[in-house]
Amino acid sequence: MATKRNAFYAQSGGVTAVINASACGVIEMARANRDRIGKVYAGRNGIIGALTEDLIDTGKETASAIALLRSTPSGAFGSCRYKLKSIDSHRREYERLIAVFQAHDIGWFFYNGGGDSADTCFKVSQLADSMGYPIQAIHVPKTVDNDLPITDCCPGFGSVAKYVAVSTLEASFDVRSMCLTSTKVFVVEVMGRHAGWIAAAGGLVEDHGIPVVILFPEIEFDEKKFIARVGKLVKEHGYCSVVVSEGCHYPDGRFLAEQGTKDAFGHAQLGGAAPVVANMVKEALGHKFHWAVADYLQRAARHIASKTDVKQAYELGKKAVELALKGHNAVMPTVERLSDVPYKYRIGVADLAKVANVEKFMPRDFITKDGYGITDKCKRYLRPLIQGEDYPKYGRDGLPVYVTLKNVAVAKKLGGFALKA
Amino acid sequence: MATKRNAFYAQSGGVTAVINASACGVIEMARANRDRIGKVYAGRNGIIGALTEDLIDTGKETASAIALLRSTPSGAFGSCRYKLKSIDSHRREYERLIAVFQAHDIGWFFYNGGGDSADTCFKVSQLADSMGYPIQAIHVPKTVDNDLPITDCCPGFGSVAKYVAVSTLEASFDVRSMCLTSTKVFVVEVMGRHAGWIAAAGGLVEDHGIPVVILFPEIEFDEKKFIARVGKLVKEHGYCSVVVSEGCHYPDGRFLAEQGTKDAFGHAQLGGAAPVVANMVKEALGHKFHWAVADYLQRAARHIASKTDVKQAYELGKKAVELALKGHNAVMPTVERLSDVPYKYRIGVADLAKVANVEKFMPRDFITKDGYGITDKCKRYLRPLIQGEDYPKYGRDGLPVYVTLKNVAVAKKLGGFALKA
Repeated sequence: MATKRNAFYAQSGGVTAVINASACGVIEMARANRDRIGKVYAGRNGIIGALTEDLIDTGKETASAIALLRSTPSGAFGSCRYKLKSIDSHRREYERLIAVFQAHDIGWFFYNGGGDSADTCFKVSQLADSMGYPIQAIHVPKTVDNDLPITDCCPGFGSVAKYVAVSTLEASFDVRSMCLTSTKVFVVEVMGRHAGWIAAAGGLVEDHGIPVVILFPEIEFDEKKFIARVGKLVKEHGYCSVVVSEGCHYPDGRFLAEQGTKDAFGHAQLGGAAPVVANMVKEALGHKFHWAVADYLQRAARHIASKTDVKQAYELGKKAVELALKGHNAVMPTVERLSDVPYKYRIGVADLAKVANVEKFMPRDFITKDGYGITDKCKRYLRPLIQGEDYPKYGRDGLPVYVTLKNVAVAKKLGGFALKA
Repeated sequence: MATKRNAFYAQSGGVTAVINASACGVIEMARANRDRIGKVYAGRNGIIGALTEDLIDTGKETASAIALLRSTPSGAFGSCRYKLKSIDSHRREYERLIAVFQAHDIGWFFYNGGGDSADTCFKVSQLADSMGYPIQAIHVPKTVDNDLPITDCCPGFGSVAKYVAVSTLEASFDVRSMCLTSTKVFVVEVMGRHAGWIAAAGGLVEDHGIPVVILFPEIEFDEKKFIARVGKLVKEHGYCSVVVSEGCHYPDGRFLAEQGTKDAFGHAQLGGAAPVVANMVKEALGHKFHWAVADYLQRAARHIASKTDVKQAYELGKKAVELALKGHNAVMPTVERLSDVPYKYRIGVADLAKVANVEKFMPRDFITKDGYGITDKCKRYLRPLIQGEDYPKYGRDGLPVYVTLKNVAVAKKLGGFALKA
């Protein structure tokens, strides 16, 4: 059978609380198959590491350091936002990739990312056909946005969903305590530029008696209707919470965050969607408000990661290696849901050609008719994904024990390479 | 010996992740002393509940519901921002308090709050002398701001400090992974109007190799110096994190961001220093930035509460009842630190007259000379306060099990009372 060749692994795009758990799965599985897979080289800062021949020898890391990846957020080898263009227009980059792969005898390519990255991984998977370089490329799904097609969910999403649901519940309890004389409307802004999966997670607090309004990117923003909804909830409950997706926008496509307003000195008004929404409520209803913007805190929050999510991230990493060993190319392991309650799933396989550049939005029947909440169907979908806790260890200083790898560089064999601007 | 009388307990001011743990301590200790303490009535929405005779009979709650208070954030009986003015100018309010206390045979008064509330509690403690109504008033300290004098720390602070330190660590790991092609400066805004204790907690991530700049309310903001500091760190590390206190201000007292609105105590309502700081960095250095505003998420974050903090909140609640039973009046139980490593403390007692309206700021020797970091002395102070985890239970829906009490009203015996506007 095939001779022993080295593997390349890279992290791509926005990092998550569990992308390192996938890295852990890839590396541990590769180490368990040393007869087929030689070294595992990681790209320093993602695919840029491959282009610049900046490779990390993961073999220099101890087994316990690799095991700690499972409970460490962020991208341990560095990630980047860098999308390979088409082979026709950017042949020079692909030739360079092949030169680097050849120089380091890389025959396995594992790429850990979202939709854009799936496209890059697909292009690499075609290098045998397109440029005569034999390589097997497997994509490991990752994105807090949960917008990859085919797979039931994406590693990274369950943990950010748990963070958003827990944080919304806690802040809503806070507001409920104080609403008679203080804040009546609390607004929290969450990620999701195009798809409202993350915002949807805030809707889970409804089952705990919390009045909540969700603003999805999938639903065009209607200020009058929104204000009426908030007004009604405050009248009924004395308070309400609003979870606004950063991608929430007007019918003309303008984001809520882009108000174009200026202060008295002519400076552009700063801030995200949350302060805009909060001020709308204040002006229309006069209610005292508070707002939060979770930003990176949400996607990095390994301390409150979903156990289901961590487990799947790890399993998909392992499965990617298994698929490669079985001879697969241009595929991505997926989560196939078998049942909601009890939650059962199995790991499946998708053709990468069908994954690349396809975004999965919230189905309309996951959003309530009025556009401000989630349906029971959506709740049944979300609940298993935030189930279980998978706490990191804590040190004597009260902080989590997250690993920083040595990231030892592999000696270069080629000359330099100028990245395109 | 004293006859058996009823107790009044109320929560005041901004709620925290552990104020209910103090409530739990008060109620459990009172229940253990039924020979001396009859009913425990809680004020619905704090002192407003006393003025409007809106009392909650905590006796209607099961022992297990009361036990769950220990792991439930927010104020279970409702809190308020309502400060009693002087007896001379507002005699009508004090007469009403006495009427309500008398009607419900209340002889014990437990008030759970911060500096403003300590003042209210002190005034109540003087009702025997000033207006001939015999009552013992004990203050239970609570404030995320950690700005009460005499006590080594305040319940609520340790948990918000843990949240800020953990979140800053996690987000910094995230930024470090991506800084080559993406965000280089991450700014997180935290609470602390006048005292920088909460912001200081962000400095603990330094020991994990994270370059961080802290902006304290105690240090006048100097834009040029700040930009130079950020520029230096980004040059050295490729990225840096900034923790900015909402109370950070210019030499003339102007806050970095002020929304113009004021709360019930007349304090300016703040929020939005983070985007201001982030844009400064962008304009001066051109670095890509991200910013977060933690707002209520930080003080409600029971899911990552400090075990030390939860324990102390509970113990101080219990101690308040013990002090009352021993005949004390106008006092507040305190935390007296005995040693940093290993952390040892005992519960002490402070005269309320010395607590009310006194704010404790960060000592200058807790802040580094340049004004942007914390000293080893500060770290030794902070570390024990964020030590240990005290996780809530989680339900099958993946969310924490937080209790919502029945809050059964006590039958009114008096006519209505109009609160001052």
